[in-house]
Amino acid sequence: MSFRFQIEARDSAARAGRFFTPHGEVQTPVFMPVGTLATVKGVPQDTLEELGVQILLNNTYHLYLRPGVEMVRQLGGVQKFMAWDRPILTDSGGFQVFSLSDLRKVTEEGVAFRSHLDGSSHFFSPESAIAAEIGLGADIIMAFDECTEHPAEYKRTQDSMEMTLRWARRSKEYFEVHKSEAPWFAERHGQTQTLFGIVQGGMFPDLRRESAQRTVELDFPGYAIGGLSVGEPRPMTYEMVDAAIRFLPEAKPRYLMGVGTPEEIVHYVAAGVDMMDCVLPTRAARHGLLFTSEGRVTIKNARFAADEGPIDPACRCKVCARYSRAYLRHLYASNELLAQTLNTIHNLAYYLDTMRRVRQAIVLGDFAKVLSGVRPPHLSVP
Amino acid sequence: MSFRFQIEARDSAARAGRFFTPHGEVQTPVFMPVGTLATVKGVPQDTLEELGVQILLNNTYHLYLRPGVEMVRQLGGVQKFMAWDRPILTDSGGFQVFSLSDLRKVTEEGVAFRSHLDGSSHFFSPESAIAAEIGLGADIIMAFDECTEHPAEYKRTQDSMEMTLRWARRSKEYFEVHKSEAPWFAERHGQTQTLFGIVQGGMFPDLRRESAQRTVELDFPGYAIGGLSVGEPRPMTYEMVDAAIRFLPEAKPRYLMGVGTPEEIVHYVAAGVDMMDCVLPTRAARHGLLFTSEGRVTIKNARFAADEGPIDPACRCKVCARYSRAYLRHLYASNELLAQTLNTIHNLAYYLDTMRRVRQAIVLGDFAKVLSGVRPPHLSVP
Repeated sequence: MSFRFQIEARDSAARAGRFFTPHGEVQTPVFMPVGTLATVKGVPQDTLEELGVQILLNNTYHLYLRPGVEMVRQLGGVQKFMAWDRPILTDSGGFQVFSLSDLRKVTEEGVAFRSHLDGSSHFFSPESAIAAEIGLGADIIMAFDECTEHPAEYKRTQDSMEMTLRWARRSKEYFEVHKSEAPWFAERHGQTQTLFGIVQGGMFPDLRRESAQRTVELDFPGYAIGGLSVGEPRPMTYEMVDAAIRFLPEAKPRYLMGVGTPEEIVHYVAAGVDMMDCVLPTRAARHGLLFTSEGRVTIKNARFAADEGPIDPACRCKVCARYSRAYLRHLYASNELLAQTLNTIHNLAYYLDTMRRVRQAIVLGDFAKVLSGVRPPHLSVP
Repeated sequence: MSFRFQIEARDSAARAGRFFTPHGEVQTPVFMPVGTLATVKGVPQDTLEELGVQILLNNTYHLYLRPGVEMVRQLGGVQKFMAWDRPILTDSGGFQVFSLSDLRKVTEEGVAFRSHLDGSSHFFSPESAIAAEIGLGADIIMAFDECTEHPAEYKRTQDSMEMTLRWARRSKEYFEVHKSEAPWFAERHGQTQTLFGIVQGGMFPDLRRESAQRTVELDFPGYAIGGLSVGEPRPMTYEMVDAAIRFLPEAKPRYLMGVGTPEEIVHYVAAGVDMMDCVLPTRAARHGLLFTSEGRVTIKNARFAADEGPIDPACRCKVCARYSRAYLRHLYASNELLAQTLNTIHNLAYYLDTMRRVRQAIVLGDFAKVLSGVRPPHLSVP
């Protein structure tokens, strides 16, 4: 079995479970930190382990450009490359190439795009994107989809959703033929990667439903909801999650891509989401925005200059255990490298602790209490 | 006793010993990593502890500007400020303000200078520099000296040396009156900081000798040799160290400031030096230059792109234990933060391991063997 998912407890729509991959087990609901170029910016891998990171997300687009898929494959896959012996998930590159709005051209066949690094020309089709993901060798890989822009008209969104469905089929067909080509296939005794499908459908509930139903017909071991948190108001995000998730099978993991704030991720779990990733904790940290049990802290603020307290008195991370706000403020104000590292460690700890707390509450059957303690997410924009 | 130094073993001129400060014990010979702004750039304090860093150097000039002496004093001193409960040494700011050649003016009274940050005007006298060092509260502080520029004529060097001697006396007089003002004086049961004198004398052996003799007459608990590694050829550095060190008392620690390469520091120990600091391991690391038992490694080099080996097969640091050259090359080529952190950890490990090996050899009486295995230092420029 290359992939197995089991649910251990439920509390309303929320679920606590775990899944198993060739590189280990992941307890859900899970937050996956983003390690774009095979590194969570500024944080050594042993620190990620100490933090209890179970699974990382890497970006196929970025690794495809640097150091290149063939290089990572030759070095044994991305886990060995980055010396991270736990599960990894790669996106398909779809979201990134669609973000290059001036540098890409979409056809039925795929997407022609130019590198943001040097302007060189490249092409991703469902087949070549999956080939790249197989070469990288993440445990979970994502179908190549079109992330519909926002806002978009109904017809345009429907056409885009239809193409994503065709691309999902092509992704799966390519994967089934080539799945024994993962760099570690032999040494992991014939285990393979696992390909998830992605639901699109823009901001139209009926398209979300249709996309969910027809993606499920293609039969993937897990399903993602993509194309959200792309600029729409937060209540609309919830509406779209809700419209899609009710048509995703209970027995398979559900991955909401690219979300959210610490409050939002709790509410998404309440909606039945099992997996999430987001650059917010890491990117915000590098800009001095820290998440705490008492709200947001902008560490460069002069009022912290003489503050001997920790970032968050309720946090047990190693940054809060050791360093004062005054010191962290000094590091940030002085543009010191260590500011980025320590801020990132804290924010990741905050997200991961939140998820552990949520999971435990689901297991104990008092998730409602945790949920009621979290501000309504549409009020929670930083 | 606020400071005590004992020698435990000798091997020719080399010595193995230890000294005791209010924040703990340091085994010598010791290499002190540079933590300019109360941080070794990119390396968390717990990692410094794991590396076996015994004592750090902080720069008074930089901390005086940010976050300011009064702030650090109010927060309990620099050890508490940076959450580092081991010894710290501060320079006097002299070297830094003399580096601001266009922004400073020297008189008998002291040095007027402009901040490199905002151009604001400041003044360091021996008294105000020592006051700053007392406010910061490092365990070992340095007299305010003039670091003579290189090259300099004999007369100019002599005059400069004479002023450094007058400033040394003023530094000591101020310190004796104010030494109970260290931020932690009361909580450390009346222990005080320790003030070291600094030998100058440019590139003239007789001035080096005279500076050493007359600084020793002022009676400090330890002596530094300053004003070297300022652009002179390396054999001249050795000649100047030799000219000064023979006139420094056996029973007190000798600190050679701002040196050197991994090979050089071994040779300086052979000359009788007990303490050294240098930005080289940390700064070179940030530029991708790594020190190894097999020589220098420029990690960005394309020949490492597929190299699965560690930076240094003989190194037991946690970077060499975990990461490949290929990965470190990728991080560096991609301008990733983690490159700077991991490279710095390795280079510091290399310096600290070198010093531990040297110390053990002195204790065991086979230092000559270690020394003979190290390339002649004048051939060792990277």
